[in-house]
Amino acid sequence: MPNISQQLQEYAQYIREWNAHGWSPATSTNYSVRIAPDLMAISQSGVDKSRFTEQHFLQMGISSGQLIAPPAGVRSSAETGLHLALYRVSAETNAIVHTHTVYNTILSERYLAQGYLRLAGYELLKAIDGYTTHESVLDVPVFANTQYIDALAAEFVQRYASEPTMKAYLISGHGLYTWGKTVEEAKRQLEALEFLLECEYRKTAMR
Amino acid sequence: MPNISQQLQEYAQYIREWNAHGWSPATSTNYSVRIAPDLMAISQSGVDKSRFTEQHFLQMGISSGQLIAPPAGVRSSAETGLHLALYRVSAETNAIVHTHTVYNTILSERYLAQGYLRLAGYELLKAIDGYTTHESVLDVPVFANTQYIDALAAEFVQRYASEPTMKAYLISGHGLYTWGKTVEEAKRQLEALEFLLECEYRKTAMR
Amino acid sequence: MPNISQQLQEYAQYIREWNAHGWSPATSTNYSVRIAPDLMAISQSGVDKSRFTEQHFLQMGISSGQLIAPPAGVRSSAETGLHLALYRVSAETNAIVHTHTVYNTILSERYLAQGYLRLAGYELLKAIDGYTTHESVLDVPVFANTQYIDALAAEFVQRYASEPTMKAYLISGHGLYTWGKTVEEAKRQLEALEFLLECEYRKTAMR
Amino acid sequence: MPNISQQLQEYAQYIREWNAHGWSPATSTNYSVRIAPDLMAISQSGVDKSRFTEQHFLQMGISSGQLIAPPAGVRSSAETGLHLALYRVSAETNAIVHTHTVYNTILSERYLAQGYLRLAGYELLKAIDGYTTHESVLDVPVFANTQYIDALAAEFVQRYASEPTMKAYLISGHGLYTWGKTVEEAKRQLEALEFLLECEYRKTAMR
Repeated sequence: MPNISQQLQEYAQYIREWNAHGWSPATSTNYSVRIAPDLMAISQSGVDKSRFTEQHFLQMGISSGQLIAPPAGVRSSAETGLHLALYRVSAETNAIVHTHTVYNTILSERYLAQGYLRLAGYELLKAIDGYTTHESVLDVPVFANTQYIDALAAEFVQRYASEPTMKAYLISGHGLYTWGKTVEEAKRQLEALEFLLECEYRKTAMR
Repeated sequence: MPNISQQLQEYAQYIREWNAHGWSPATSTNYSVRIAPDLMAISQSGVDKSRFTEQHFLQMGISSGQLIAPPAGVRSSAETGLHLALYRVSAETNAIVHTHTVYNTILSERYLAQGYLRLAGYELLKAIDGYTTHESVLDVPVFANTQYIDALAAEFVQRYASEPTMKAYLISGHGLYTWGKTVEEAKRQLEALEFLLECEYRKTAMR
Repeated sequence: MPNISQQLQEYAQYIREWNAHGWSPATSTNYSVRIAPDLMAISQSGVDKSRFTEQHFLQMGISSGQLIAPPAGVRSSAETGLHLALYRVSAETNAIVHTHTVYNTILSERYLAQGYLRLAGYELLKAIDGYTTHESVLDVPVFANTQYIDALAAEFVQRYASEPTMKAYLISGHGLYTWGKTVEEAKRQLEALEFLLECEYRKTAMR
Repeated sequence: MPNISQQLQEYAQYIREWNAHGWSPATSTNYSVRIAPDLMAISQSGVDKSRFTEQHFLQMGISSGQLIAPPAGVRSSAETGLHLALYRVSAETNAIVHTHTVYNTILSERYLAQGYLRLAGYELLKAIDGYTTHESVLDVPVFANTQYIDALAAEFVQRYASEPTMKAYLISGHGLYTWGKTVEEAKRQLEALEFLLECEYRKTAMR
């Protein structure tokens, strides 16, 4: 296992690069990594991701949901509950990423009524953990947006119980969550999903 | 309050980054910050924003509308009157930003007849000062373009008096203005609005 | 007048930045500047513009059309004749730029039959030399593409004689030419035109 | 012939730049260069291309298809067979590049049934080896995707035998392959093709 400080530095570097892609406008989005079985580092609320550094990760107990010695006036992301919920139900999940992109915003609205967005037939599906062929189908659940994160976390936990192979989900008009056993796996899935969402969007714009 | 020179350096850095996004082509756009209750720093006219530095801010009295010791031959932006008008009517506004983007240009034309562009249902509305839920509506006024900045300033002041919660406005075929209590707030709102305008445009291109 | 070597360094820097925007794929495009009344520096043929430096400018007599002491095996751009033609008929033109972008390629094809592309009503028209209001019309001529550069140069000269306020032209399926009294003016017009062409394209994609 | 290590460093730099364009999301894509008549350097499988360096090239015999002293646990790209097939049938091919882009993904699906995508009338066709005028037609074959690389390699070899002037091919829902006598020629063709595919896509989105 790499040194935690070094791992968070590298993660912060990824977060700045994703920001440069336009994936986290206006201090939005959040990121976490499990740094011990019952401990996560999660991004501080309200930070401009173009300036995000290792110092903007806060440590929080996963069972307790309590920040460890937070600096005064500092809060973790408002969506911390979604991270806790997943780490609690999935022991193999060690990193969670969340982006706001134009394509995931539009498509999450478009597919909310259907309840999922289907990705099928793409070579890049092989970037998703457990997918070994393009002849695969990946259904990404779409949840309605809400400001009641506890309620959304409960809805996620219920759906995850019935769809334990879920690899990502969308929140309507809001963004995308995906995760992995490592930060690198979460990064790989994030890049693949954002690419495939752009493909899906662009197909809808084609005559 | 941070050192003014340092604050202007940081602002100039943001301006160069916005230029790299394509938000200020061809020496267009302008930016200001209130540096004392009756004093603003405003961008010099005609500067290529990819090369904008702290040296390109000029100081101007807000009540007087007079430049403080300007270098010979140097003018502030042609739209200085729009900045003065807002600082004069809103004591809590301390930073104003103005961008020319493809999306704000097209949509400002599209919604001119209606008089406003409505943004609704987006999580990213929470990046706008005073908005705490995606279940919100933000109406962005659209003004007709004119080369008579004093007339446009008067039109803005009148509308602002009746819509004091206004957070931004568009000028048709021209661009977007937004502002905040700090440069950081103006930046956050700018990034959110440009993102949401791109969402709105892309929805119109979808079948 | 700035030092020529310094001016060419700065120009080369602009050329690399335009390449980073995607405006000169696959070693395409060409650039020149008049460095004396009868002398221009013009970009060498076949250079990857992401690596373009001051060393890639060749000197050529404007009346003579002859390279000054060219290194062995080095040629100027295949479209050199278009640069010579303009410098010969317009004493006030001192810089010429030519880009290949997706938008100028598509729109030049679309408007070839009409013979020009009309830009109207945009604030950014004020970035064009001599335009002082958005209530202006800029007609950009569109020429058919040809590999016979001398013929195209003659066609341009004829049209320029009847449209001496011409500020730019398109070649169908090929690209955009614009120019100015200085490199900075040509840069400003180039950025404005590429922005406005993107606006025009995106309007055609809107429902 | 330049020093091989220096050549691979330069190639790795190109690969990182293409990644920055969004052409190799999620550790996808692969690249090779022939470094001796019967020896190629080919990219290692699973590497994030934003971090790709000279160290990520593996050496493999072209006739043998065997890696030369590979580090433990390291594999070459899963699509190595496509590289070997082309080097074996084309002695003048010395570099092969493969990208995953949104435009090549969508268009490869769109033109699969037709079996090829036709590019015609573009000035940028002159960036393709052997093309000297825009009055040319370039048909890019489209193959169905498969996880059986040997079968795809055989299909390619058969088609290449009947279309020996083939300059590139698409795999449906997957990506683009192109190649050249040098890395620089492959780079030039790649940039030209990706540009022209974007043109083709954008025309389909136009009303």
